[in-house]
Amino acid sequence: MGTAFAQDAGPSTTEVKFIIDNLWILISAALVFIMHLGFASVEAGMCQRKNTVNIMFKNVWIVCIGAVGYMLWGFNAMYPGDFGGVFATGSPIAAGFSGEAATANLTSEYADYTYWSDFIFQAMFAATAATIVSGAVAERVKLGSFMIYAAILVTFLYPVSGSWHWGGGWLAEKGFGDFAGSSLVHAFGGFAALAAVIILGPRAGKYTKSGIKPILPSNLPLANIGVFLLFLGWFGFNGGSVLSADAATVSLVFVTTAMSGFAGGIGAILMSWIITKKPDLSMALNGMLAGLVSITAGADVIPPYYALLAGFLGGIIVVLSVGFFDKIKIDDPVGAISVHGVVGIWGTLAVGIFGGGDFGVQLIGTLSISAFAFISSFILFFIIKLIMGVRVEEQEEHEGLDVAEHGVPAYNDSAN
Amino acid sequence: MGTAFAQDAGPSTTEVKFIIDNLWILISAALVFIMHLGFASVEAGMCQRKNTVNIMFKNVWIVCIGAVGYMLWGFNAMYPGDFGGVFATGSPIAAGFSGEAATANLTSEYADYTYWSDFIFQAMFAATAATIVSGAVAERVKLGSFMIYAAILVTFLYPVSGSWHWGGGWLAEKGFGDFAGSSLVHAFGGFAALAAVIILGPRAGKYTKSGIKPILPSNLPLANIGVFLLFLGWFGFNGGSVLSADAATVSLVFVTTAMSGFAGGIGAILMSWIITKKPDLSMALNGMLAGLVSITAGADVIPPYYALLAGFLGGIIVVLSVGFFDKIKIDDPVGAISVHGVVGIWGTLAVGIFGGGDFGVQLIGTLSISAFAFISSFILFFIIKLIMGVRVEEQEEHEGLDVAEHGVPAYNDSAN
Amino acid sequence: MGTAFAQDAGPSTTEVKFIIDNLWILISAALVFIMHLGFASVEAGMCQRKNTVNIMFKNVWIVCIGAVGYMLWGFNAMYPGDFGGVFATGSPIAAGFSGEAATANLTSEYADYTYWSDFIFQAMFAATAATIVSGAVAERVKLGSFMIYAAILVTFLYPVSGSWHWGGGWLAEKGFGDFAGSSLVHAFGGFAALAAVIILGPRAGKYTKSGIKPILPSNLPLANIGVFLLFLGWFGFNGGSVLSADAATVSLVFVTTAMSGFAGGIGAILMSWIITKKPDLSMALNGMLAGLVSITAGADVIPPYYALLAGFLGGIIVVLSVGFFDKIKIDDPVGAISVHGVVGIWGTLAVGIFGGGDFGVQLIGTLSISAFAFISSFILFFIIKLIMGVRVEEQEEHEGLDVAEHGVPAYNDSAN
Repeated sequence: MGTAFAQDAGPSTTEVKFIIDNLWILISAALVFIMHLGFASVEAGMCQRKNTVNIMFKNVWIVCIGAVGYMLWGFNAMYPGDFGGVFATGSPIAAGFSGEAATANLTSEYADYTYWSDFIFQAMFAATAATIVSGAVAERVKLGSFMIYAAILVTFLYPVSGSWHWGGGWLAEKGFGDFAGSSLVHAFGGFAALAAVIILGPRAGKYTKSGIKPILPSNLPLANIGVFLLFLGWFGFNGGSVLSADAATVSLVFVTTAMSGFAGGIGAILMSWIITKKPDLSMALNGMLAGLVSITAGADVIPPYYALLAGFLGGIIVVLSVGFFDKIKIDDPVGAISVHGVVGIWGTLAVGIFGGGDFGVQLIGTLSISAFAFISSFILFFIIKLIMGVRVEEQEEHEGLDVAEHGVPAYNDSAN
Repeated sequence: MGTAFAQDAGPSTTEVKFIIDNLWILISAALVFIMHLGFASVEAGMCQRKNTVNIMFKNVWIVCIGAVGYMLWGFNAMYPGDFGGVFATGSPIAAGFSGEAATANLTSEYADYTYWSDFIFQAMFAATAATIVSGAVAERVKLGSFMIYAAILVTFLYPVSGSWHWGGGWLAEKGFGDFAGSSLVHAFGGFAALAAVIILGPRAGKYTKSGIKPILPSNLPLANIGVFLLFLGWFGFNGGSVLSADAATVSLVFVTTAMSGFAGGIGAILMSWIITKKPDLSMALNGMLAGLVSITAGADVIPPYYALLAGFLGGIIVVLSVGFFDKIKIDDPVGAISVHGVVGIWGTLAVGIFGGGDFGVQLIGTLSISAFAFISSFILFFIIKLIMGVRVEEQEEHEGLDVAEHGVPAYNDSAN
Repeated sequence: MGTAFAQDAGPSTTEVKFIIDNLWILISAALVFIMHLGFASVEAGMCQRKNTVNIMFKNVWIVCIGAVGYMLWGFNAMYPGDFGGVFATGSPIAAGFSGEAATANLTSEYADYTYWSDFIFQAMFAATAATIVSGAVAERVKLGSFMIYAAILVTFLYPVSGSWHWGGGWLAEKGFGDFAGSSLVHAFGGFAALAAVIILGPRAGKYTKSGIKPILPSNLPLANIGVFLLFLGWFGFNGGSVLSADAATVSLVFVTTAMSGFAGGIGAILMSWIITKKPDLSMALNGMLAGLVSITAGADVIPPYYALLAGFLGGIIVVLSVGFFDKIKIDDPVGAISVHGVVGIWGTLAVGIFGGGDFGVQLIGTLSISAFAFISSFILFFIIKLIMGVRVEEQEEHEGLDVAEHGVPAYNDSAN
């Protein structure tokens, strides 16, 4: 092909590199988008058949309203955060293109990617925080109340703690390390979920005098699809967080991300087998997710063998954490508080242990974010409870939300 | 890394840019490919359990025969169209590589992508037109008849109206705007479907003297998977239609596409809630698809906030349209005529309203394409009806096509 | 945009090209990753409901342990192979980054991609070999035994024959052609499976005195999802095997891969329709896979029309082969021996027929690899049988492995 492309006066190498970098951010945005299908499928698969439509409806709502809320307020609140790096006020993203600023937003003067790529990649991220909560409150949360809660969480709360680090706020100044969001996304979602679950209470019949009643998952192949799609999406979640297609860093991030996820699966398989004496598919799947959350803060700085170790430990932690929350009667149908919250903290600390980060700063950072998520979610959900209630009627919960609220079952097996 | 890559006499920047642009077209082709799984899953999920195998078999056939037919005739009919830009005759694509022409086809002399990339991207597009029809005629169409119909539609009919615009025909000369095919693909498929449904008639028992009998979807998680995969694929459908990886345009297209899809979901959720007083998952899903169809014609020229509006309106339109067709007893099990046909027209007109296009030309263009699709599909399907019939036996329809025609149910729940 | 990017002293074109090439290998790795979801879904969908959890658990284990085993031994055994190109000893991959070697591994001095990209792409490949076996032994293999077998197969056996060609061993020296692994991956997996199935025996009740008892697939939409995801992943499997983003070759590979897959679907549809007088969805799906396996060895050298023919014949072969193995009472629930083993040989020979390869060398190569896979798998599985047994108890098989071994059904339909 050498002859067909003589040295010429074509585009500059800076422009060409910009095109690749930008393309990778966009492809990553698409990969993160598919995580929303992953979340919906895991949640629907792990919960009861009678609440499946309700779960998917919530997830469609979250990704739709989350992205719109992020467009109208969140993105400009998070980058950069205002109020001295502690609080964050937003505004709608720029409407269009005119003058020099617009040109700059579409070239490498803005970043290694365009303004639009920046926005859409971050918008896909933002909605995941509310989705994490969705799994924990499933099967008994009142739909309208949750819809309002999720919209406010993504639009107004998530950008606040997000701005502390990615918006250049006080955690960024302290040298906090959270590459793709073990704390800013996952622990945020996990501890927001914990607050909501405490207010909401467990599913009816879960904790009885005679002990914990296991509620079986309705569709494990669907959960399996969900977890693998989440894993796939994580290549964009972490890989796109490099914010360029830089060969050395993106390659490393792919290896640490994948190997930590695989090691998490192995860790959870072994740990749950030891405890329950059974090969537990749900735990194997949650273990892979835990491995991925474990490396999300340090995918760019933790060497591959330590990534293996971080993920393996994450897989063990998630098994213990799920058991712990069940023991203290915090009912989390999909294990979201453990996978994203507890392991999110672990992943952030792992940067201090394996990735050269300052352990103290990592600890302060992840606890601050988790505390903010917990407290702000608690207040928000509590206010919604006072105004309109957050829990469905007992009868509805018993009957299942699909027919009671949506008027249609998820699966219709009748011959006609 | 600067030291490792000294300024050297490597490939030219034109060659490197060509490699990126071409790669993006190929990745887009893969994304459009996965839309075929999306279509199959939506259709199977929204229809009755007893016809699931039949639906998936049709979809496998369509993508296989569609691509082959496009290789042997369609591609060369569509680009460029013959007969003065009105009719289109085709021929097999070039067999191989020899001489100067072959070299040109593999370099930027051909385009920003190779001849092969051009073909495979367009081939993945082409088969979607027949897939749209598949959803509307599901549950009662005769398999062999539909297989012939679909092969002819993709190979001979779709390229005709396609050539009017993308092949440089009379609509291109008029300045018609249809970026990625709101009319050329979606309205074409939707109105081809309408003609087929009119000939075919509604499913037995759907419209009774005592009113419309709702036929419940068999598997909503499957439909949910389908819609999200379609959304994912749309990033390639619209994003790849930029026909290069140009940073500014592809970024904008990602934002307009996604935000219009999300707004469509919100629009349909609100509209259907107002009408039926229930949060309707099927409508939410169709609303996202409607949002995506709404922006397909103008993803490159409609500014993001107008994309939001276009999609939102698309979501409202699809709810009204589905109700309308049910009222006039046009039985479309998945809402394909509304999502792709009616909203395809809306998306094309939106270019004239929000995207700087000439409204009159947009109207003429979309009506011409829709009319051509309707009429040619009607004639074709009617001829097939005369020769071999298009509808299954009453007994088969009642029993379900899976066991009657394929000898196997889609789901087998028996313990052994 | 020309004005925004003046000719500057940015990165060299070699560096920029390196970034694209590397990015494509990484994206391909992600695509191959999703094939593991494809395999799990096909297998779970084609088998009985009562063994679904067991199947998915096996698949999670394979991808997790396979990648880790490949990290600790396999990768360095395969590239390059030791012992004069016949045997292969491995070692853990390089631990980290220091000195000149590390820098070289991250620049184009290593290849068109980094060391990490090389590893992760190949690791995703490696685990597929064991997954192929998984399908053939499903529904009666003892879980623990299979877990050990799979770990050893991927870590120690697969790299041996892999090193013969891709590691520069004796087959590479002979001029053997196997672009992306019709033999090295697919025939290897298929004939390893055959050995395991011979030792294991058929499922209880499959072959009775009164003839072959058909065991119906439990979830064909799940199998459909699996096959389409495999098809999608194949764009990375074959496309990434170009080992760069070279426009001409990757474009050709996309076309030959897709068209062969589509033609395989058509071939299997027609052939099975002739034989069984029914439109057979399972065969159509296996036909697409057979088409893809048919072109995997020659995707870079077989011209598109011959790719169509190779795939079409692959689709016919798979139907005949599935019938043949059923006749000789080799019970392969998903047809893995036929799709990957028999058609893997066909695909390798096709390089000698349509792709300019030496037919004799192709024959020697594919038979050597298949024989090595069969013999080494036989010995390994036989040793495991002696030590711990390979087959579940009759009672467990009857009851289903999900409840018996895992304590939970895959689908739980009860109202509460």
